[in-house]
Amino acid sequence: MSNASPLLPVLEPEAVAPCCPPLNERPLTADEAERAARMFKALGDPVRLRLFSLVASHEGGEACVCDISDVGVSQPTVSHHLKKLKEAGLLTSERRGTWVYYRVEPSVVAAMGQALISG
Amino acid sequence: MSNASPLLPVLEPEAVAPCCPPLNERPLTADEAERAARMFKALGDPVRLRLFSLVASHEGGEACVCDISDVGVSQPTVSHHLKKLKEAGLLTSERRGTWVYYRVEPSVVAAMGQALISG
Repeated sequence: MSNASPLLPVLEPEAVAPCCPPLNERPLTADEAERAARMFKALGDPVRLRLFSLVASHEGGEACVCDISDVGVSQPTVSHHLKKLKEAGLLTSERRGTWVYYRVEPSVVAAMGQALISG
Repeated sequence: MSNASPLLPVLEPEAVAPCCPPLNERPLTADEAERAARMFKALGDPVRLRLFSLVASHEGGEACVCDISDVGVSQPTVSHHLKKLKEAGLLTSERRGTWVYYRVEPSVVAAMGQALISG
């Protein structure tokens, strides 16, 4: 008998197909649209988009809430938005000591871009 | 005296800078984020994203409401979403006879993609 558990989480399906086909290739199916719209929506808020660009352009390619002070919203709001970006697959996070560090998930973001450009 | 009116609308500033700088170049300013977020938000709805891909992939690169029948929403809802995409700068429209035809504004869409890919 194998010890492998069928309950192990599937390894990041996003890594295989991070976004969607080129948007001008054919009409998206309802499922594809549902998934891709979630990613675009994550960038569809001005504060969240600023935070995303802040993380993406930060030294070392990562940032924590402690690095973010000038977007005009409270630290809990910053944390909330970063969590949303993570849930959408655009950021990953890692706790180190007191702080959670966020970095861009390049494959997902590039796939979104590609869908628009090939589109 | 010149006849040139200072009240003439500025010619499509979007044509010059359709979206935003690469998102990993530097943190977006509040104004840049406000503007770019509007574009991403337009694609952040599943029905709207399907309609966008439908127009983008339609024969001849354009579609009217009359071409759209299988996204599961009423014709007025389709029209409403297409209008939103147009307001965000992602589609242009032209009335021909009974119908308004929509087509993708490639410079704007490509600039969004580029911001993600350079980012």
